[in-house]
Amino acid sequence: MAAPPISRYPVPKLEELSEDIRARMLEVQEKAGFVPNVFVTLAHRPAEFRAFFAYHDALMERDSGLSKAEREMIVVATSGANDCHYCIVAHGAILRIYAKNPFVADQVAANYRKADITPRQKAMLAFALKVSLHSSELVDDDYAVVREHGFSDEDIWDIGAIAAFFALSNRMANLISMRPNDEFFVMGRIPRTK
Amino acid sequence: MAAPPISRYPVPKLEELSEDIRARMLEVQEKAGFVPNVFVTLAHRPAEFRAFFAYHDALMERDSGLSKAEREMIVVATSGANDCHYCIVAHGAILRIYAKNPFVADQVAANYRKADITPRQKAMLAFALKVSLHSSELVDDDYAVVREHGFSDEDIWDIGAIAAFFALSNRMANLISMRPNDEFFVMGRIPRTK
Amino acid sequence: MAAPPISRYPVPKLEELSEDIRARMLEVQEKAGFVPNVFVTLAHRPAEFRAFFAYHDALMERDSGLSKAEREMIVVATSGANDCHYCIVAHGAILRIYAKNPFVADQVAANYRKADITPRQKAMLAFALKVSLHSSELVDDDYAVVREHGFSDEDIWDIGAIAAFFALSNRMANLISMRPNDEFFVMGRIPRTK
Amino acid sequence: MAAPPISRYPVPKLEELSEDIRARMLEVQEKAGFVPNVFVTLAHRPAEFRAFFAYHDALMERDSGLSKAEREMIVVATSGANDCHYCIVAHGAILRIYAKNPFVADQVAANYRKADITPRQKAMLAFALKVSLHSSELVDDDYAVVREHGFSDEDIWDIGAIAAFFALSNRMANLISMRPNDEFFVMGRIPRTK
Amino acid sequence: MAAPPISRYPVPKLEELSEDIRARMLEVQEKAGFVPNVFVTLAHRPAEFRAFFAYHDALMERDSGLSKAEREMIVVATSGANDCHYCIVAHGAILRIYAKNPFVADQVAANYRKADITPRQKAMLAFALKVSLHSSELVDDDYAVVREHGFSDEDIWDIGAIAAFFALSNRMANLISMRPNDEFFVMGRIPRTK
Amino acid sequence: MAAPPISRYPVPKLEELSEDIRARMLEVQEKAGFVPNVFVTLAHRPAEFRAFFAYHDALMERDSGLSKAEREMIVVATSGANDCHYCIVAHGAILRIYAKNPFVADQVAANYRKADITPRQKAMLAFALKVSLHSSELVDDDYAVVREHGFSDEDIWDIGAIAAFFALSNRMANLISMRPNDEFFVMGRIPRTK
Repeated sequence: MAAPPISRYPVPKLEELSEDIRARMLEVQEKAGFVPNVFVTLAHRPAEFRAFFAYHDALMERDSGLSKAEREMIVVATSGANDCHYCIVAHGAILRIYAKNPFVADQVAANYRKADITPRQKAMLAFALKVSLHSSELVDDDYAVVREHGFSDEDIWDIGAIAAFFALSNRMANLISMRPNDEFFVMGRIPRTK
Repeated sequence: MAAPPISRYPVPKLEELSEDIRARMLEVQEKAGFVPNVFVTLAHRPAEFRAFFAYHDALMERDSGLSKAEREMIVVATSGANDCHYCIVAHGAILRIYAKNPFVADQVAANYRKADITPRQKAMLAFALKVSLHSSELVDDDYAVVREHGFSDEDIWDIGAIAAFFALSNRMANLISMRPNDEFFVMGRIPRTK
Repeated sequence: MAAPPISRYPVPKLEELSEDIRARMLEVQEKAGFVPNVFVTLAHRPAEFRAFFAYHDALMERDSGLSKAEREMIVVATSGANDCHYCIVAHGAILRIYAKNPFVADQVAANYRKADITPRQKAMLAFALKVSLHSSELVDDDYAVVREHGFSDEDIWDIGAIAAFFALSNRMANLISMRPNDEFFVMGRIPRTK
Repeated sequence: MAAPPISRYPVPKLEELSEDIRARMLEVQEKAGFVPNVFVTLAHRPAEFRAFFAYHDALMERDSGLSKAEREMIVVATSGANDCHYCIVAHGAILRIYAKNPFVADQVAANYRKADITPRQKAMLAFALKVSLHSSELVDDDYAVVREHGFSDEDIWDIGAIAAFFALSNRMANLISMRPNDEFFVMGRIPRTK
Repeated sequence: MAAPPISRYPVPKLEELSEDIRARMLEVQEKAGFVPNVFVTLAHRPAEFRAFFAYHDALMERDSGLSKAEREMIVVATSGANDCHYCIVAHGAILRIYAKNPFVADQVAANYRKADITPRQKAMLAFALKVSLHSSELVDDDYAVVREHGFSDEDIWDIGAIAAFFALSNRMANLISMRPNDEFFVMGRIPRTK
Repeated sequence: MAAPPISRYPVPKLEELSEDIRARMLEVQEKAGFVPNVFVTLAHRPAEFRAFFAYHDALMERDSGLSKAEREMIVVATSGANDCHYCIVAHGAILRIYAKNPFVADQVAANYRKADITPRQKAMLAFALKVSLHSSELVDDDYAVVREHGFSDEDIWDIGAIAAFFALSNRMANLISMRPNDEFFVMGRIPRTK
């Protein structure tokens, strides 16, 4: 079977792209060795592309009480709950690399309660999943529980906002049938040797 | 009872804001007569504020096969499904104004199936709600149904992307307990007389 | 678009009605200035009409530890959970008037947890929603929680019975596609001035 | 273990009852050989008692295109879906007697799809369960399906209204922990011999 | 109406069966007076038959901290939650006999919270239903609750494993539309007199 | 963090095992290079161990119209729906090997609708998931759909019985917190070179 397309929608050629979008793609290619399909497929709508990655970076690159691995845990856990194939696979790879742990992504995608993570991280994911799945039911007690685990109010915004942003991201990926790059499936699974 | 705060988080004072954010607020104030709380409360995080409104405008201001009223219908219907008080009230007001119809917002928030809208609009909302609530279950037939109602592939992206963006927006509003301005509740309910 | 019918079923003309049913309608018209469609549409079945309003009055007019506004809160919250357009709009209007509050109905219809109501009223609505949505899961602890908020056993019957009666009412309104009168949408939204 | 009480609430003694309520109880006792607990327990609130049974009789005793056994099937199927112990057991007994079939009640309470009933009756129960569980999702197609099975519009009102009335009844029984009389469990299970 | 078949699949004749399977059937017939349809219908696949009953006996016949009646309560409660007509009726009969109680099976099938059973048994069924319906959400606290009611770790395995085995059994019965024998419906309902 | 235990329950030492169970483990070790934890952890209960693997082999090793890869697809898809970490990881590995495809397991675990599989296989998985999640709702049409894709009645039993068996298996793994062996995570991800 030929590999299916990476999107239900047309994907622009590199030469058709605006300069800023092309620059962003080349930057990630340099770093990762390939251009993740989320860049290629969302470039079909340049204005949305720019807002999407500005939002992504505002949350995922900022100084935060959450480590980068913890932020990716939130992405993988909520994407698992939303059955978003692209995000589970792509962010699972990133999580394995940040956490230097070949198992944690598959654990968190399936069931964070049984993952090899700290009680603090489990509380973080329970809060994130409530934002993802039942945000109208959030009450003061939910905030109190994560605060007891040492999260500040700004950390809680980060937890909730990452869950909210990937609520968008999961739906976009499902809408356009975004396909993960083959490279993601094995990334971070085998310890690098020098 | 004193009116509760408009956010669980601090809201910046006008003089603390960056120039671009202040300009945006003044612009909307000019147009609406007041600054909707979504601007004030999200300004707590300037980078996210900019991305949020860039995304919003990319979807809600672009040329599209969907009228502005139709886009607001999607917002109201999906916000109703997510029990997001801020978005139902604020976008309900905007929908009443764009549609020049004092009833349609409350109808669509409760149950689009019984609203005074066209079969084409009902198909649009059924698709939007599937994106909002069960996006992993989207299959070719879902796209075929809306295409039969005359929506182009780009229109379908718009429908789905608006549903996806307000999946984010609803969760942010619920996360910070964003409170709608009093002005929204009555906007568009009473026909203006010249 | 012409206004759609107020019911899937025929509605009797005033002169076709039995005397007692006509009297009831005239009484409400005197008080409200119009006849709510629930009277007109249910009159298609006189025996059910009589039982319906007898039940309604037995619960909503009796002396009770619940104020009339609190009883309407239960109606609006459970009708919101059942997506009943007629009941949200009609009883939302009544709630605004009894509570002398133009905001509380839309708040409670969307999410009582964020409404401007007392903790006691939130406990009342949590109990009512459990009766409405998961009545088989009621256990002693649920009764203990509302008792701690000062509700007597008779008050608890009232809370549960109103939730139960509007479980019927919501389903009837959805069954016959009962349409709310235009008048309800704006009632109680604008403070009366003498 | 002593038999638990038949209600969370006090039950009036026969001599405390109003004449009309006592007469009703004696009438059913004559017919059934005992007074079903629904009469005894709801008599705690006489006005509600009267409305409840007036509503019940309006639906269950009227001339209808549905046989009495079919009406009880609706009660048993929806009460099964609502996990209402009283209604499953009491109306299961009545169904066995009306249908002269010792098996059909347990079948319908568990899963009407596998019950020994006609395709027409299965369509009736599918409609009733939609009213009971998802009434806001009713659309024209649902009415068309039952019409194709020969149900008139008035029959459809009966189907839906019985489902709606027992939505109330199930919640009341769960609210007060109404206990079925021992007699119901075996009624109609063993063919009478003359 | 002729009685429908006891399975969607062919059922082997007694003379076609392997010796061990026939022996098993004759043994149960001796004891019960008839061969329950689960034996006859699953014999269509002899290897699966043998594994099924080996598993059944390993759980239901072993020495355990749970009485035989308690084990059947788990079967009836979880089969009720899975709407498995065969298992509710057949194991309901067995539960009535083991518990020497004509009411408990119908109670537990509808709603264990209101059954005439001990608080310890209610905790057991709450755990069993969590295994049956939401096993991925099991956390340490769930085990702690049942331990406080005096269940050992081995008892907890029994509770969970019986719920797990009947998750299989319910699905097989629903898959093949297994029909309960008429005899089960009345078994254990009427006290035997010597 | 030290690796957590592979089960909430004690696991027997190799020398404590009965001969037949030890033989089974050595056989699988020979073939796979390690003993999967499902063997080690379930050996805590030898009688259940024997029945479990007899059932497993009866379904997974028999001659069938389903290929071995297709049977593992059913396992992975239903285990994904049940959030069973052990089964997703372990059977995902087996699926990759049988299908000689490094991507299909992660695809099917997340969302079979978007996997690189045939329409026939998608129909197979839709049926399997209905057995797994809503078996009481199976109706003739469900069987007709898979038959149209060329599955025989015996194939349909296989599909349903595998879904049913892993309903048990998933619950057992979740009950005892069964941990997948590290080896599974990378198995079948990298094409073997001779």
